[in-house]
Amino acid sequence: MLASVLELLSSSLVVSAMADGKVYLVGAGPGDPGLLTVEAVRLLQAADVVFHDDLVSSEILELIPQQVYVENVGKRCGHTRVTQQQIHSLMINAAKEGWTVVRLKSGDPLIFGRAGEEMQALHAAGIEFEVVPGITAAFGAAARARIPLTDRRLASKLVFLSNHQCAGKSLFDWKGALATDTTALIYMPGQDLAGLAGRLNEEGLPDDTPCLIVSCATTAEQQVHAARISTLATAPRYPAPVVLVVGEVAERYAREREMELEPMPLDEDWSESAEQVLGD
Amino acid sequence: MLASVLELLSSSLVVSAMADGKVYLVGAGPGDPGLLTVEAVRLLQAADVVFHDDLVSSEILELIPQQVYVENVGKRCGHTRVTQQQIHSLMINAAKEGWTVVRLKSGDPLIFGRAGEEMQALHAAGIEFEVVPGITAAFGAAARARIPLTDRRLASKLVFLSNHQCAGKSLFDWKGALATDTTALIYMPGQDLAGLAGRLNEEGLPDDTPCLIVSCATTAEQQVHAARISTLATAPRYPAPVVLVVGEVAERYAREREMELEPMPLDEDWSESAEQVLGD
Repeated sequence: MLASVLELLSSSLVVSAMADGKVYLVGAGPGDPGLLTVEAVRLLQAADVVFHDDLVSSEILELIPQQVYVENVGKRCGHTRVTQQQIHSLMINAAKEGWTVVRLKSGDPLIFGRAGEEMQALHAAGIEFEVVPGITAAFGAAARARIPLTDRRLASKLVFLSNHQCAGKSLFDWKGALATDTTALIYMPGQDLAGLAGRLNEEGLPDDTPCLIVSCATTAEQQVHAARISTLATAPRYPAPVVLVVGEVAERYAREREMELEPMPLDEDWSESAEQVLGD
Repeated sequence: MLASVLELLSSSLVVSAMADGKVYLVGAGPGDPGLLTVEAVRLLQAADVVFHDDLVSSEILELIPQQVYVENVGKRCGHTRVTQQQIHSLMINAAKEGWTVVRLKSGDPLIFGRAGEEMQALHAAGIEFEVVPGITAAFGAAARARIPLTDRRLASKLVFLSNHQCAGKSLFDWKGALATDTTALIYMPGQDLAGLAGRLNEEGLPDDTPCLIVSCATTAEQQVHAARISTLATAPRYPAPVVLVVGEVAERYAREREMELEPMPLDEDWSESAEQVLGD
């Protein structure tokens, strides 16, 4: 059905309304093409060139019209195919040709990527650009797992962290970022889940803190695994992109499915609220 | 143009494909209808009933077809029109009528709202439900202000906080959540910006930390004001929804516009990167 919607969208587009020689940093969302924004769909139809990251889902790439030039400029730790400077040059040169350039980034373009550097380079080169936000992976994961990210009874803060590592060295400091009333969304948790559990413990989180591992959120390949910090080490390793949700809200996933990880009574709040509703 | 796109979308919808008696918790995004997801547009066209929050923009409400029953179930501090229990009952009863129910929440449905309670009530009543994520206000604000939310040179963490207060009492604890390498996104900063500045100082942030106040992000009424913690108290008061961005990344907004708040040299990283690009 989406294909026919996109055909209709495409036929209604007035491509000449797009400014020439402009770069759009566009969020592709977590993977499901239905979670693209209307604006992102419009730009993919109107683009002359699309430069995309490795993690943009194939279902989304399939929506780009045949005549558009599409290039994967994805970089992975230690395996640089295209340098950051080359990405800047590609965008700038394409815009100078008068083309409509879409720089397509998985999730939202402004977190855990190089958008800051890319915007700076475009600005310095005098290239007009615009940013189109996208659904970040963690919001897609929480929606499909049906867990709240904040809850006035459980979590008052939300923190986004990255465990991105190169050569075993963590690139990001987490000091003080974690607390028991915080939901932590950890991007790129990596394969060393025992090490990650240790890092969470070091930051003061108890062993029984609930966790959810969500791989390829919102796509047909989505996998979800419920754990606690103490059982993270033996959790399955899933393909990227993976988001790890850490905090009390993650418990709701297991509870709703009655896959309680260890005996734990329903809290009063839960049963009380259910009774009130049923009694209305 | 969006209107014609939506007409086309609407004509292509197979409404009978929607399951009956189901509730969709849907993110409306920050305000611009172009930032709705394809899935959200589809559901607004297919809904029998829409229950929405106060902060959903009028441009988005105008997209809902005439025949759909639309009700504002917004609550504001101290001025409850509809209680949380009543919202639960409204959704449950509508679903039991066999209707397709959209619970439309501004931004993303899973943060700083009562989605946790609403999902619990639906689950307890045996009502089928689904969550459709949306672009949260802060991501819309950052996109329009063209500032990165993380930047490996400036901010490695992102924290979402709420300054929602009732009767002068803050509902949320921020202890330990802030640091100089963190971008903080503060929802509902409120009118007492002097008090808020004090709270930020107490958490250890220096007076010269850059801030951006963004009101009605992504709508025609959007207003942006650049400040520092030391000048927050005298900043203009804008209409809700407001997001306050606190952290070094906010500096980019003023710098790009050459509205430097106080003399500050371009950092080497910035000029070096510009030269490299221009020299390519």
